[in-house]
Amino acid sequence: MSEAVRYIDSESLRVFVGELFAAGGMRLQEAEWYAETIVQANLWGIDSHGIIRVPAYFDRIRIDAINRRAEIRTIRKAPAMTLLDADGAAGAVAGRVAMEQAIEDARIHGVGVSGVTNSNHFGAAALYSQLAVKQGMVGIAMTNVRPLIAAPGAKCAVVGNNPFSIAVPTYCEFPFSLDMSMSVVAGGKLHLAAAKGEKIPFGWGVDKDGGPTDDPRKALEGFLLPIGGYKGLGLAYAVDILSGVITGGLFADQMRSMYHDPDIPSLTGHFMVAMDISAWISPEEMGKRMEYYHHFIQGIPMANGVSPLIFPGELEALQEKKRRKEGIPVPISTMKTLKQLREDYGVQSWLRETRGVKKDGSLVS
Amino acid sequence: MSEAVRYIDSESLRVFVGELFAAGGMRLQEAEWYAETIVQANLWGIDSHGIIRVPAYFDRIRIDAINRRAEIRTIRKAPAMTLLDADGAAGAVAGRVAMEQAIEDARIHGVGVSGVTNSNHFGAAALYSQLAVKQGMVGIAMTNVRPLIAAPGAKCAVVGNNPFSIAVPTYCEFPFSLDMSMSVVAGGKLHLAAAKGEKIPFGWGVDKDGGPTDDPRKALEGFLLPIGGYKGLGLAYAVDILSGVITGGLFADQMRSMYHDPDIPSLTGHFMVAMDISAWISPEEMGKRMEYYHHFIQGIPMANGVSPLIFPGELEALQEKKRRKEGIPVPISTMKTLKQLREDYGVQSWLRETRGVKKDGSLVS
Repeated sequence: MSEAVRYIDSESLRVFVGELFAAGGMRLQEAEWYAETIVQANLWGIDSHGIIRVPAYFDRIRIDAINRRAEIRTIRKAPAMTLLDADGAAGAVAGRVAMEQAIEDARIHGVGVSGVTNSNHFGAAALYSQLAVKQGMVGIAMTNVRPLIAAPGAKCAVVGNNPFSIAVPTYCEFPFSLDMSMSVVAGGKLHLAAAKGEKIPFGWGVDKDGGPTDDPRKALEGFLLPIGGYKGLGLAYAVDILSGVITGGLFADQMRSMYHDPDIPSLTGHFMVAMDISAWISPEEMGKRMEYYHHFIQGIPMANGVSPLIFPGELEALQEKKRRKEGIPVPISTMKTLKQLREDYGVQSWLRETRGVKKDGSLVS
Repeated sequence: MSEAVRYIDSESLRVFVGELFAAGGMRLQEAEWYAETIVQANLWGIDSHGIIRVPAYFDRIRIDAINRRAEIRTIRKAPAMTLLDADGAAGAVAGRVAMEQAIEDARIHGVGVSGVTNSNHFGAAALYSQLAVKQGMVGIAMTNVRPLIAAPGAKCAVVGNNPFSIAVPTYCEFPFSLDMSMSVVAGGKLHLAAAKGEKIPFGWGVDKDGGPTDDPRKALEGFLLPIGGYKGLGLAYAVDILSGVITGGLFADQMRSMYHDPDIPSLTGHFMVAMDISAWISPEEMGKRMEYYHHFIQGIPMANGVSPLIFPGELEALQEKKRRKEGIPVPISTMKTLKQLREDYGVQSWLRETRGVKKDGSLVS
């Protein structure tokens, strides 16, 4: 679990991954977007969606499981509702195009909605909701994935854990940014517990017959459970319907997983909303209100030993500040794979190590 | 718990309540809307939001805690985003006006968004999301309420359980209609367990110091817990922000409860979205897809003794069919109070009993 890492300057990482994906056949601009989302996930500390995925993403580009020359087209349009066919593009590209379209529509109509069909895994949903925040808008982003959570009592997977994000401009140090899936925990937590030989709480997952279990290995053979039972299940259906049903895309059991079927497009759908709240409230007033809210939750008295409450996205913003300075930890095995890809595809740039971090957390001077 | 009831024809109930509220000083049209939402809650089996609330609502109308002559005004407008000041109107009236505005905007722009400030309790959120469904649109409705759920480890309430609903046209027997709050269970379940002298699962609520408890009475003195821990908490913040922060209304600890403070307006906010999906997908195709989805979840194998999965809203639709025929059960104590109000305010119409229901569930012929 504690593989040795190198600390890599985030900007050099972004440039390298962009050049690598361009060398793999993507258009430079789109390769750079893709790279940006991957590095942003690392900056937020969401390493599961970061640089360690690059070799797998690159393979998918090379074999056209991700269409490197996708022609993303508008296929249906109401003034403020745009439906896009992503033509098998990378989710990071299709997601960005979709949110930028929603933002453009919101500038004119106040709100813009985009649906995307025939896309792929788009990484962290907050990547897209926060694009809206940069324009002073509220952003909502969601996507559907292959079924992997079971209803209480069900003996097979019913619906994806279908990530959902909403981000809100605060005009303070960081935006409000909720990014969550509809399962109690992500599959990664089961892997972690299994590797450590630890038990998990009942309620995280069920075994392959839908029975309760506190054994992470049995839960890994089985299914995750939704937050709040039928409530989380209902939310997961709703995300699936918005991303896959009303878009004319795939939904329910029709989708594929990039993990189970790495060599074919997963054809997921996305759904994005941007709302230009400036017609309703000024940035000054919005800033004052979100500051009040933040102070309010910070002031909630907590039980002994429990940290004060923080806003969704606060931890990620702190992490980004730290990692922009200290660099992003990249496992040495990933470094080796990237180096090989660099040689095989003749990429010019390379990763720049920061001075690294001492055991006490301070920077090496 | 099992107070004797009379079975009342739903149409006579609707007419009576409308006349009563008009006699209390509301405009007839608005009184009728209000009555319709109350009876609809009963038809769906959500009796907690139904006829038993009428005496309390009526008191609030009489003392102007609900403004019976409210002038609901548009105070800010982008083409597809309308902000309304409800002027202390009944939530059922403000909610309806807001969703109808969103629907009207959606007809022109594809999507319409309405925010409402200075409103009151609006009952079941699905009442409004389903108004959109009747126009072939996806509807989303939410509202903020006074803090009553605690974060894990918090020693006081942090945020309301902030109901959220999304409804989707299916062109089948009933719409997809999710209506949920962000707490694991509603307070009513604690009352029920307390009355029966039963324990509750840990995780439903905490005691007044934020400590875990399986005693419903201690949880009633304390706070509810959010679904999925920080996930449900984040969703509750999001609903509060959309309903109360961006609308310029009240949020967080600023609101009042109609239960704790029955004699003053609670000044809650609402947030509504209507999306005209006809630009993206035809009713025929939508119907086929939702039927596929419904069949898919019906076919999920379940553990022994567990009922097949149903869609959100399916139970309510079945209940409505039944109650339209059999009548709505009204507790005799409520009947008496209503009768007194009828005499005091000179209401013409009265409730019409159905033949009632036999012990085996069949109608009295």
